[in-house]
Amino acid sequence: MELSALEKTSILIEALPYIREFYGKTVVIKYGGHAMQSCELKRAVMQDVVLMHLVGMRPVLVHGGGPEITQMMERLGKKPEFIQGQRVTDAETMEIVEMVLVGKINKEIVAEINRLGGRAVGLCGKDGMLIEAEKQSGDVELGFVGQVRRINPGIIETLIAEGYIPVVAPIGVGPEGESYNINADYVAGELAAALKAHKLVLLTDVEGILADKKDPSSLLSAVEVTRVPELIEAGIISGGMIPKVQCCIRALEGGVARTHIIDGRVPHSILLEIFTDKGIGTMVVP
Amino acid sequence: MELSALEKTSILIEALPYIREFYGKTVVIKYGGHAMQSCELKRAVMQDVVLMHLVGMRPVLVHGGGPEITQMMERLGKKPEFIQGQRVTDAETMEIVEMVLVGKINKEIVAEINRLGGRAVGLCGKDGMLIEAEKQSGDVELGFVGQVRRINPGIIETLIAEGYIPVVAPIGVGPEGESYNINADYVAGELAAALKAHKLVLLTDVEGILADKKDPSSLLSAVEVTRVPELIEAGIISGGMIPKVQCCIRALEGGVARTHIIDGRVPHSILLEIFTDKGIGTMVVP
Amino acid sequence: MELSALEKTSILIEALPYIREFYGKTVVIKYGGHAMQSCELKRAVMQDVVLMHLVGMRPVLVHGGGPEITQMMERLGKKPEFIQGQRVTDAETMEIVEMVLVGKINKEIVAEINRLGGRAVGLCGKDGMLIEAEKQSGDVELGFVGQVRRINPGIIETLIAEGYIPVVAPIGVGPEGESYNINADYVAGELAAALKAHKLVLLTDVEGILADKKDPSSLLSAVEVTRVPELIEAGIISGGMIPKVQCCIRALEGGVARTHIIDGRVPHSILLEIFTDKGIGTMVVP
Amino acid sequence: MELSALEKTSILIEALPYIREFYGKTVVIKYGGHAMQSCELKRAVMQDVVLMHLVGMRPVLVHGGGPEITQMMERLGKKPEFIQGQRVTDAETMEIVEMVLVGKINKEIVAEINRLGGRAVGLCGKDGMLIEAEKQSGDVELGFVGQVRRINPGIIETLIAEGYIPVVAPIGVGPEGESYNINADYVAGELAAALKAHKLVLLTDVEGILADKKDPSSLLSAVEVTRVPELIEAGIISGGMIPKVQCCIRALEGGVARTHIIDGRVPHSILLEIFTDKGIGTMVVP
Amino acid sequence: MELSALEKTSILIEALPYIREFYGKTVVIKYGGHAMQSCELKRAVMQDVVLMHLVGMRPVLVHGGGPEITQMMERLGKKPEFIQGQRVTDAETMEIVEMVLVGKINKEIVAEINRLGGRAVGLCGKDGMLIEAEKQSGDVELGFVGQVRRINPGIIETLIAEGYIPVVAPIGVGPEGESYNINADYVAGELAAALKAHKLVLLTDVEGILADKKDPSSLLSAVEVTRVPELIEAGIISGGMIPKVQCCIRALEGGVARTHIIDGRVPHSILLEIFTDKGIGTMVVP
Amino acid sequence: MELSALEKTSILIEALPYIREFYGKTVVIKYGGHAMQSCELKRAVMQDVVLMHLVGMRPVLVHGGGPEITQMMERLGKKPEFIQGQRVTDAETMEIVEMVLVGKINKEIVAEINRLGGRAVGLCGKDGMLIEAEKQSGDVELGFVGQVRRINPGIIETLIAEGYIPVVAPIGVGPEGESYNINADYVAGELAAALKAHKLVLLTDVEGILADKKDPSSLLSAVEVTRVPELIEAGIISGGMIPKVQCCIRALEGGVARTHIIDGRVPHSILLEIFTDKGIGTMVVP
Repeated sequence: MELSALEKTSILIEALPYIREFYGKTVVIKYGGHAMQSCELKRAVMQDVVLMHLVGMRPVLVHGGGPEITQMMERLGKKPEFIQGQRVTDAETMEIVEMVLVGKINKEIVAEINRLGGRAVGLCGKDGMLIEAEKQSGDVELGFVGQVRRINPGIIETLIAEGYIPVVAPIGVGPEGESYNINADYVAGELAAALKAHKLVLLTDVEGILADKKDPSSLLSAVEVTRVPELIEAGIISGGMIPKVQCCIRALEGGVARTHIIDGRVPHSILLEIFTDKGIGTMVVP
Repeated sequence: MELSALEKTSILIEALPYIREFYGKTVVIKYGGHAMQSCELKRAVMQDVVLMHLVGMRPVLVHGGGPEITQMMERLGKKPEFIQGQRVTDAETMEIVEMVLVGKINKEIVAEINRLGGRAVGLCGKDGMLIEAEKQSGDVELGFVGQVRRINPGIIETLIAEGYIPVVAPIGVGPEGESYNINADYVAGELAAALKAHKLVLLTDVEGILADKKDPSSLLSAVEVTRVPELIEAGIISGGMIPKVQCCIRALEGGVARTHIIDGRVPHSILLEIFTDKGIGTMVVP
Repeated sequence: MELSALEKTSILIEALPYIREFYGKTVVIKYGGHAMQSCELKRAVMQDVVLMHLVGMRPVLVHGGGPEITQMMERLGKKPEFIQGQRVTDAETMEIVEMVLVGKINKEIVAEINRLGGRAVGLCGKDGMLIEAEKQSGDVELGFVGQVRRINPGIIETLIAEGYIPVVAPIGVGPEGESYNINADYVAGELAAALKAHKLVLLTDVEGILADKKDPSSLLSAVEVTRVPELIEAGIISGGMIPKVQCCIRALEGGVARTHIIDGRVPHSILLEIFTDKGIGTMVVP
Repeated sequence: MELSALEKTSILIEALPYIREFYGKTVVIKYGGHAMQSCELKRAVMQDVVLMHLVGMRPVLVHGGGPEITQMMERLGKKPEFIQGQRVTDAETMEIVEMVLVGKINKEIVAEINRLGGRAVGLCGKDGMLIEAEKQSGDVELGFVGQVRRINPGIIETLIAEGYIPVVAPIGVGPEGESYNINADYVAGELAAALKAHKLVLLTDVEGILADKKDPSSLLSAVEVTRVPELIEAGIISGGMIPKVQCCIRALEGGVARTHIIDGRVPHSILLEIFTDKGIGTMVVP
Repeated sequence: MELSALEKTSILIEALPYIREFYGKTVVIKYGGHAMQSCELKRAVMQDVVLMHLVGMRPVLVHGGGPEITQMMERLGKKPEFIQGQRVTDAETMEIVEMVLVGKINKEIVAEINRLGGRAVGLCGKDGMLIEAEKQSGDVELGFVGQVRRINPGIIETLIAEGYIPVVAPIGVGPEGESYNINADYVAGELAAALKAHKLVLLTDVEGILADKKDPSSLLSAVEVTRVPELIEAGIISGGMIPKVQCCIRALEGGVARTHIIDGRVPHSILLEIFTDKGIGTMVVP
Repeated sequence: MELSALEKTSILIEALPYIREFYGKTVVIKYGGHAMQSCELKRAVMQDVVLMHLVGMRPVLVHGGGPEITQMMERLGKKPEFIQGQRVTDAETMEIVEMVLVGKINKEIVAEINRLGGRAVGLCGKDGMLIEAEKQSGDVELGFVGQVRRINPGIIETLIAEGYIPVVAPIGVGPEGESYNINADYVAGELAAALKAHKLVLLTDVEGILADKKDPSSLLSAVEVTRVPELIEAGIISGGMIPKVQCCIRALEGGVARTHIIDGRVPHSILLEIFTDKGIGTMVVP
C-alpha cells in the first residue's frame, strides 16, 4: 500500500488543521463492547489514545467490563441476575464488581497504555471523591446500582495538566463510603459535562444511527437534539441506542461541544473521527 | 480528663515547633499488621494521616493486606502456600492478590480517609509506572513475587503538590505489563528514598527494638546504622525485625532524614512520634 | 507534670485543626497593661507571638506604654496631667511620648521577639504613612491627642508577606507631618479592620466581661454586638471595658471575623485562646 | 482520489509522531528558485509554512530574488553584471537590490502568508540589527556584496515566541549603517545556526544529490559530512550544489540537528519532508 | 556654555518628574517635512527618540516620504500627478511608493536609530496585518490611495514590550493583499488611538497654531477641541493645519491623553515638549 | 533665570543617560553634618532623595544625629564626654541616644520624605536584625560604642523591592538584645557593601579631598585606593577625612561600584553628583 506523494499530502492537509483545533482539548471516550474483547481492536484503541495524547489532546477513558464480572461471580458460585439489562447487585456482588473493574480491568488498560508509550493512571469514583453516587432511583430493587450525584473533576484535571491519561472505572462512592455500580455510558456523559470536555465519544458495536437498520449506507452522520423524540417515535433510535443518545444530550447540556456515537468495530475509528473531514458514525449536535 | 491551662500550653509549646519543622515535608508510612485489623486503630491511623495533612505535612501511605488475600484464595478454592514467610504466587494467585489489594483494601482506605475529611487517591505500581518491578532474585521459585527495579515518583509528586494523599498498593509492573507482588515494607523504603522523604515510619506489632525482649522498658529509642550488625549478632534485632531495619537502612542511604519503627498497637502512635519531644518506638539513624 | 500519651494526643487532636484554620491568617494583638510590666508575662506573650508565626499565622502587635512615658516626663521635669483618662499632650510632651514609645518600648519588644527566634520590625504611624491622624474631636483640649483618619496598611502587608512580625507604636501622623498620640486599643481596632484581619485580640487586666463582677466564674464567653447596649445599661460592661468593646465593634464592622477580650495576666493566654476549643476570656461576635 | 479508512489511518499513524517531535521547534527554510516563479508552487510553499505553524512548529523563511532585481535594474538603465555567479553591486545597484528585496518581494510573501491565515512579519538585516555584515573577503571586487559577521537573533526569537512567522530578506548592515547584498543560502545557514534551529531546509531546483546525475532514482537520501570531500572529488557534488552543502555543514556545526536539500519543484515538498518516514531529497547529517 | 550648578539643578528638578510620568508610556511621533530633509535635524530627531527609549518611554515612529518617491518616479519615467494635494497612485506608482517607503526610507531610519544605540524594527502595514486598508472614499479617482479600515496593534505591542522601537511606513494592506498609499498623519493618529498611546506628537514645518500667522509670538499653546470649529471659521486653523488638527481629534477620541503639533525645525523639539513645563508648539486637548 | 532651549536640551542630553544607568540601582547616602542643621539644605536633600526614587533609583538613607543627643543629655542632667571624637556611652546614655536617634530624628526624616511625596520607612539595627553589633574593640573604654558584626540586609531589600525608601538610624543590636551606638559613616559603608549597592555617597562639610586645603580649586575629583596611603602620608587626607575614606574602601572591597565624598553644603549636591558628567566632590575608586 504505497501511496503517492500527492495522496499523502492531501491527507496531511486535511488532518493538520484538526491538530490545531484539538490542541489542549479534553476528549472523553467511553470504551466498551466489542472493542474490549478483540485483542487487535483493544490495541488499536489504546494506540489511538496514545497518539491523541502525543499531539496535545487530553483523552480521558471510561471503561465498562461486563463479561469478566460475570465470570468471576460464577467462579465464586454467585449467579448473575439482570433486570431490564441492569445487574442486580447485592453487597457481595458489589465487592466482586469493584475488585474486577478496579483491581483487574482498569489496571490492565493502564498497563497497556503505558506499554505503548503513554502515561496512564487508573481511578475509580472514590479516588479524590471523583464520583459521588447514590442509590439509583426507580421502582426496581437493584441493590448497589447507583446514579451520579456529583462529579468532583479536580483529580482528573490535576492528572491531565501533568500529562497523564486518566482511566476511570465506573464505581461511585456513597455518603458512608459505600460503593455503587454505575453504567459506564452515564459516567462518561457526566464526566464530559463536569470537565467541560470538547468531545464525548461513545464506542459502540454498531455503525451509528441508521435510517434503515438493515442498510449500513443509511447512516445518519448528524442528528440534532430536537429531532431525537421523533426518531425514537419512528423506531430509528431504539433499544440500547436510546440511553446512549441520552448520555450525549446530557453532555451537550453540560457544555460539551460535540458528541459522537461511533463504530468500535472499525480499527482506529477514533482517529478517523477526529482527523478526517467526514468523520465516522453519528454526531449528536445541539 | 480536664487538663489545666498550664498542662495544655506546655503540650502546645512542645508540639508547635514540630509543625513548622515538618511543614511541606513528605512522610512515608507503612501501614499494616494489627493496626489494620482493629477498627479503632484503623480509624486512629486514618485520623492521624488526615491531621498530618491538615497541618501541612505530606503523608504517603503504603499498605499490606495478607489475611484478606488468603480469605479470597480460599473462597476461590486456591490453597495458600508460603516459603520463608513469602507467598508463593502463581499467575492465578497474582490476579487474586491484585484484585484484593487494589480493588478492595486500597479503595477502602481511600474511602475512609475521604470520609474523615482528607482527599486520598489510590494507586498501584502500574499507575504512572510508579513501581517498575522484576522477578525477585534468589534460589527459591516463588512465581510472581517481585522486587523493585525502579520507582518513578512523578505521579506521587503530582498528587501531593495538589493536596492529595496517595495510598499505594505494593504491586509492581514488569517490562511486559505483568504484575508482581512485592513486600510492602520494601516498597515503603524504596518509595521514601525516591521521594527524598523527610521521614519513613513503619507501623509494627511490637514496641520497637528491645534490649531485653521480655522487658518493654528496655526499648532502644535510637539505633545507629553502624551498630546494627552487632545487634543482630547479639539477637537483639532478629526475626521479622531484620527486614524492617534493612528497609530503614535502604531509605537512609537514599537520602531520607529519619526512619522510625513504631508500635502500631498504640492509638495515634504516629502523632506521638511526630509531635512530642520523646517520640515513640525506635528511631534508626545514620 | 508528665502527661500520658492519651492526654497528649487528645490535646493535639483538639489543637491541630486550628493550625489549619489560622494558616496564613492575620491576627492583631493589642499588648498592654499588666502583661507589659511582668517580666515573665512579657516573655510568655512574645513566645506566643513567635509560636503563632512559626505555625504560619501572621501576628501584628500594637503596644501601649503609659508608665514609662510618665517616668521620662518626670525625669525631664514635666508634670503629667490627665483628663478623663487621657494624657494632656502639649508639643513637648508629644516629643517625649514619641521618643519613649518609638525609641524605647517598641525597639525593646522587637529585640525580644528576635531573641526568641522571630523576625520583628518596629513601626510607628509615620512609616509608610501607616496611620494618618488628626486632632481628636471633642470638647476637651488635649493637645496632640489624635484619632485615626486613615490606615494605609501597605507597609504591614509587605512585611507580613515576607515573614516579618510588625510591632506598631500608636503614633499617628498629621497632614503637616506632625505627630499624634493615639489610644492603642483604637489603633489595634482600626488596623485589624484595614488589614481585614481574621482576629483581634485585646489583652486586658481582667478575666473578660463578667455577669457578676465579683464572681470570676460568671464570665460571659461570648457577647453579641446587638446585646452590648443592654449590657452597658445593666452596668455589666462599664468603665474601661466600654472603649475596648467599642474597638471590637469597630473591627467587626470593618470585616474582622472574630474579636476577643482576654486576660493578659494568665500566662500564654493567647495560645489558649487560639488553640483550644473553649478559648479564654470574652469573644465579641456580630 | 478517495482513500480507504485503512489508508488514511496508516498515514496519520505515520505522521502524528512527527507533530510531537517538532512541536515548538524552529525550522529555517530557504525559499528560492523555481518555487518562487510558479504561482502554484509559491502558494503550496506558503500553505506548507502556514500548516507547519498551525501544528506548533516555528518556521522562519529566508528568500532570494534574482530575476526581479535584474528587471528593475534594466528599467532604470543599469546593466547587470555577474562575476563567478555573484552580482557586481555598486552603490546604486545596492539601493535597487534593497528596494526590490525589502520593499517588494519580502512584503508580497508576507501578504500571501497572511492571506492564507498565518501572521507573517517581514524583516531585513537592519531590523533589530538582525544581520551584521561586512564586505565579502576575496580577490574579486564585487562592491556591496557582503558576508555575515554576526547574527543577532533576538528579534526573530521575539516574533516566533509571539506566534509570528518571520520572513527575512538577505540584506546585511555594516558598521556605518550601510547595506550589503548577501547570498540567501548563507543567510539561512547562519540564521539556523544562531537560532539553534532544529532543521534547515533548502529548496532547490533539483531532486537532491544524485549518485548519477542522469538518473533521478540514484538519489542519495543521506550524506554524512565526512563523506562530502570525496563526493566533491568524484563530481557527485558539484556546481551550485557545493555552496548549498557548505551551508548545511555550517548549520550543523552551529548546532542545527538536521539539514535538508529538497526539490522545490514538487508541490508540498516541505510537508513530505517533515511528516513522512521516508522524507524527500537529501539529508546532510553530521 | 557652562551653566552653574543652580541652573543645572533647576532644569533637572523640572525634568525628573516627567521621567516618572512617562515611564512605560507609548508616544507616537509623526516624522516628516523639514525635519526629514536636514541632516542635522534628522539626527536630532533620532537622538531624541533614542533618549526617550533610554529613560523608559516607548516611542513609535511613523514617517512620510514625498520627495524621494517623486525622484524615483522620474527616474523610471513616470510623471507624478497630484489632485488636492494627494498623489494619484496607479498600480505602477503604488509599487514605486512601496519600494521607496519600505525598502529605502524606512530602513535608513532603522539603521540610523540603531547606529545611535537604539534597537529599531521597520514595519509596513502588511507586517502582522498592522494596517488593514481600503480604497479612500470620495469623488476623486486617486487609484491606490487608501484609508485605514482597522489597526491590528499586536505586532507593535510585541515589539515595544521587548524594547524595540517600531518605525512604521504608511502602507496599508487590502483584503486581497494589495497595497494602499495612506497619509502618514492619519496613520499616526489611528495608530495612537489603537495603541491607547499617552501622546501623539506631529512634527510640522511651522511653530504651531498662531493667532496671527505673521507673529510667531502669538502661538496658542493649547487649543480645546470644542474651539476648533470657530478657529477654522476665523481662518486661524487653515490649509494643511486642518487635517493635522483632525488627526489630533481622532486620536483624542480614541483615548490618547494628549496630542501636540510642534515645530520640527527646532532641534530636539521633542525633548523640549516632553521634559519642560512649558513645552513647545500647540497642544490639542479634549 | 530663563534658560534657552539649547541650554535646556544640552543638560537633558547630558542627564538622561544617567537615568538609564541608575535605573533600579541602590544608592546608600550617609546624611549628616551641616546638611542636617540647615532647614533649606535638609529639604534639598530630601527632595533629591524623592526625585532619585521617582526616576527609578533605590536610595537608602543612613543618618547621624550628634547635636540633638547632646541637648537631650543636658536636659536630663548628663554631661556628654568624648574620647578621640567618640561619645562615651554608658547604659543611660545609650538609652538617650536610642530614643533621640530612633524616636525623634529618624521619624522626622521619614515624615519629611513622605510629605514630599516619597514613601519612607524608618529602621534601626534591631528591626529585622538589620545590624548585628558587638562592643567596639580597642584600648579605650567607651561603653556601648559598637562596631558592625554582621548586616542582615533582608529587610532593606524587602522594602526597596516594594518602593519604600529606608531610613536607617545607626544603632546596632548585640547578642543579648542590647543596643550599641555605631558611627553612621561605618554603618553606611557596611550597608552599601551588604546590599551590593551601586554607589555610596557620604555628605560632608568640605568640598572633598583638596590637594591644597586652602585652595578649593585644588579638588581631587578622583582618588584611587592604591594612592590613599601616600595621600595620608602627605597630609592631604587627614583628620575626619581618614575614616570617611576608609568607609569608602570598605564599601569598594564589598563590591560597591563607586563611592563619593561630596559637599553637603551645596544645595542638591546629590543630584549634581548623579546627573552631571563632571559630578561633584571626590570619587574614591578601586
